[in-house]
Amino acid sequence: MIPNGKLRILPLGGLGEIGKNMMLIQYGREGIIIDTGIMFPENDMLGIDYIIPDFQYVVDQMAQGNLVVHGIIVTHGHEDHTGAIGHVLDAIPVPVYATALTAGLLEIKMLQFGHADHPLHVFKAGDVLTLGPFTVETFHVCHSIPDGVGLGINTPIGLVVHSSDFKFDHTPVDGWPPDFAKLAEFAQRGVLALLSDSTNADQEGWTPSEAVIDKAFDQVFAQAQGRIIVATFASLISRIQQVAQAAQRHNRKMAIAGHSMTEYIKVATKLGYLNLPKDLLVPVDRANKMPPHEVVIMATGTQGEPSAVLGRLAWGQHRQLEIERGDTVIMSAHPIPGNEELVHRTINKLIQRGAHVIYHPIAQVHVSGHARREELKLLINMLRPKFFIPVHGELRHLTQHSLLAQELGIPPQNIAVVENGTEIFLTPDRLEVGERVPGGYVFVDGKGVGDVGPIVMRDRESLGRDGFVSVLVLIDPHTRELLEPPEIISRGFVFWRDATELMIMAQELIAEVVRTHKQGNLTLAIQDALAKLFYTETKRRPMTFAFVREVRGEVVPV
Amino acid sequence: MIPNGKLRILPLGGLGEIGKNMMLIQYGREGIIIDTGIMFPENDMLGIDYIIPDFQYVVDQMAQGNLVVHGIIVTHGHEDHTGAIGHVLDAIPVPVYATALTAGLLEIKMLQFGHADHPLHVFKAGDVLTLGPFTVETFHVCHSIPDGVGLGINTPIGLVVHSSDFKFDHTPVDGWPPDFAKLAEFAQRGVLALLSDSTNADQEGWTPSEAVIDKAFDQVFAQAQGRIIVATFASLISRIQQVAQAAQRHNRKMAIAGHSMTEYIKVATKLGYLNLPKDLLVPVDRANKMPPHEVVIMATGTQGEPSAVLGRLAWGQHRQLEIERGDTVIMSAHPIPGNEELVHRTINKLIQRGAHVIYHPIAQVHVSGHARREELKLLINMLRPKFFIPVHGELRHLTQHSLLAQELGIPPQNIAVVENGTEIFLTPDRLEVGERVPGGYVFVDGKGVGDVGPIVMRDRESLGRDGFVSVLVLIDPHTRELLEPPEIISRGFVFWRDATELMIMAQELIAEVVRTHKQGNLTLAIQDALAKLFYTETKRRPMTFAFVREVRGEVVPV
Repeated sequence: MIPNGKLRILPLGGLGEIGKNMMLIQYGREGIIIDTGIMFPENDMLGIDYIIPDFQYVVDQMAQGNLVVHGIIVTHGHEDHTGAIGHVLDAIPVPVYATALTAGLLEIKMLQFGHADHPLHVFKAGDVLTLGPFTVETFHVCHSIPDGVGLGINTPIGLVVHSSDFKFDHTPVDGWPPDFAKLAEFAQRGVLALLSDSTNADQEGWTPSEAVIDKAFDQVFAQAQGRIIVATFASLISRIQQVAQAAQRHNRKMAIAGHSMTEYIKVATKLGYLNLPKDLLVPVDRANKMPPHEVVIMATGTQGEPSAVLGRLAWGQHRQLEIERGDTVIMSAHPIPGNEELVHRTINKLIQRGAHVIYHPIAQVHVSGHARREELKLLINMLRPKFFIPVHGELRHLTQHSLLAQELGIPPQNIAVVENGTEIFLTPDRLEVGERVPGGYVFVDGKGVGDVGPIVMRDRESLGRDGFVSVLVLIDPHTRELLEPPEIISRGFVFWRDATELMIMAQELIAEVVRTHKQGNLTLAIQDALAKLFYTETKRRPMTFAFVREVRGEVVPV
Repeated sequence: MIPNGKLRILPLGGLGEIGKNMMLIQYGREGIIIDTGIMFPENDMLGIDYIIPDFQYVVDQMAQGNLVVHGIIVTHGHEDHTGAIGHVLDAIPVPVYATALTAGLLEIKMLQFGHADHPLHVFKAGDVLTLGPFTVETFHVCHSIPDGVGLGINTPIGLVVHSSDFKFDHTPVDGWPPDFAKLAEFAQRGVLALLSDSTNADQEGWTPSEAVIDKAFDQVFAQAQGRIIVATFASLISRIQQVAQAAQRHNRKMAIAGHSMTEYIKVATKLGYLNLPKDLLVPVDRANKMPPHEVVIMATGTQGEPSAVLGRLAWGQHRQLEIERGDTVIMSAHPIPGNEELVHRTINKLIQRGAHVIYHPIAQVHVSGHARREELKLLINMLRPKFFIPVHGELRHLTQHSLLAQELGIPPQNIAVVENGTEIFLTPDRLEVGERVPGGYVFVDGKGVGDVGPIVMRDRESLGRDGFVSVLVLIDPHTRELLEPPEIISRGFVFWRDATELMIMAQELIAEVVRTHKQGNLTLAIQDALAKLFYTETKRRPMTFAFVREVRGEVVPV
């Protein structure tokens, strides 16, 4: 149970970014959860599929009767806000609330985790949700997926506004600008606290409108002689709409390559967020037979993923499509930090195959979905919150956002920059940073959720760097001689077939150790001796293991 | 032997970037080599220390009497131009030519490879080198290390200008602007071909002068209340000079942390490229005892390397120094693509420890050492070369540089965009792209040069992702029963101590396979069965190996 009369804001794990994937808002024993997202592994998190927030603390608090969760509100349909819904509902089976597009995308994930019948309530931006003691006024925000909402959370101690991921786009593709009126109304009523998106808090100026992309597309489409292939995120519905419109303006038909984008387009079209005229779309195999200058192909793979459509095109491994000299490829997305190498490799490969590749900074074929500093200032100054809590960004972004808020006159003691798992308490008069609750984030690897921990990760790192050597040592207990030359299996260390000299040295060393070993653990003695030999000879440190047995009798290889 | 009357330009391996690390210029059977650099491994090149160009083709041509190499000219002191000198001299022991600072840095590397007595000729920018049929006029260029040169190579068929890495800085820190007069003179004489730095060919405008950093430093130094820690590249001598001057302007003493920076400073100071007043420098342990606002500490580690000074500070593992609340850390470098994650992690960790971290784009505390588009245009238009060969960049940069040259009126057939290993032939009238010569690049891993190839790399990737399982299976040939429960060793797959159920399943499966096995290879049968079990149970694919023996007798574990 938390202290009386205090509102607790608890950003839950997630990697690097704070409060983005999952957040608990709690008053007394009553709470709501905002978002249930995943994060993608960093380059040195070998073998990890994705990462989910560690919400065990919430589960424990519920089990102990300290917390009742009245619902989960998902603010928009991006993976880092929706992707963990199945895992969360397994443990916290409470009603889910989302706008139509977000709900459509959540449904697919809930189905995969056997939660098809779980209560999923669809609301419209502007609707008011009553969840326990919280009256949540939803309001439309612009972002890089349609139908995102921010939240005006009326709590017993005052109004807390959560911006969600947003930008102030005056000319969005869907013609639905940000709900400034609602923000003004919040301001009139008085805002206790603002939680605001910090992703671009170190970027000066104002993020360009999605509309600028139309101009860039027109320029590229006008110049392209052959096919055009536009790669973007499957979820970037507005970009798909923009490509469709550019295709129509330039008399091209549009084909969709790839499963995930087809899925998103299906959901978005069904729900009315995407308008693709029937006579615009053609199947990929028909597009293949049309004159190149009449075709646009939409694809995924802007992050250099080798298994996505663009990756397969770059490496010449797509089933239906092949890059041809004269193709123009538009990379309509920025590399997510960490993906730069793969993205650049993909671009180089596409060029190698004869494509003309358009990417940032060559042309403005992508804009961010997140507000920059001038927009962040506008939001703060429209709402004039008493307390300010930067969220959705790494610590460095939150720090910059905090400095920006201070420039606008919010006193430092009214601002909390915390990391995931650190609770913030609000009263009408005070903001306090509380304890760090147990937990962090959880690796998902295949079927395993959380079973891969630091030890396995360290072993993977070591194996990835230097490989391993495994040996079988069978000894005659009477003579202390080897019953057979030790069999050695090694991978990732040296190319064993070329390393016969090293293998013979290893075998001789094992025989020597067995012969001269007096006391202690022989297996460890063999492993240590081999490790030293390998390091001396190669300056590498493969993991080294020995199976050692004494055999009274005869050994037959199988 | 190459065709009569043709000049061959052959960019040699190196990863991603073209013609940067090593290049052969050849006429008849006479050649020179430009630069002998290394590349750093990309994130998925597990365990690799560094990469060198594959120059075996050059060695073979020399052995066959088709090629005489008259010398190696190293254009400047960066690792990607100097780092492979030891490897190259092992195989191609020809004289080396470099300016004083470059030579000072080369000497250290040559010593490490036992080439301390190898002929290393020091020249000054402006000097003329005669190497076989080539008269090479060296000229000063500005770059992010002092004493870099470009080359005007007078060949039997005309003047070939190589820009080296350069920017047009009108106000460089060392007061030595680019040698425009020499470029003008080349233009008057007529330039057959220009090879020009493409690194920033996709960046609009003009790279800011190093001088802008003084202003940014002044602002940060004026505001900092506590210590200032400036991180930059050890080789960025001019930046160290700028920090020293800022320290003097703001009444701070300067300490140097880290071995490599101390080494560079020693060489640069001895040779007169760096001027650090005696009373400015203090040892780190004395700086530790001084009032924080009187101290600047220089450090390496801007790329997030965990073992560099800044990395150790971020993780609290430095022997002498510790980040304190109130410290200001200036990241005076951009992340090299691929290092973003590590750099951001380091920044976040420094903030966590209480430092105020200044990095791009928060303030202009770093500028690139490479020319942007307006500078590239200026160089082309000053020289008006007949042929144009973009170098020093990935394929995507070379492509943009080629388009830029075409905008300036150089016809496409007079431009060659090639990859490493592809030869270009020039005559006074024609440019031809020739064959691809054998070779690529070579991994250096510990003592091994080139022994880690695609198979070992693929195994490392697999081991890093899913680990391995190794089992010992000892069978009684009469009963077909196991003589002991199979011993299983596994790393990087699951946390084995928590996976007892899976281990028992594996042991039972092995017994079952042994019992029911009729024909074929029993070892493979066990491995296959285990691999299937592991995939079904975990959706992971550890490498799986079995040692299988029949034993007539008794087995004793050791």
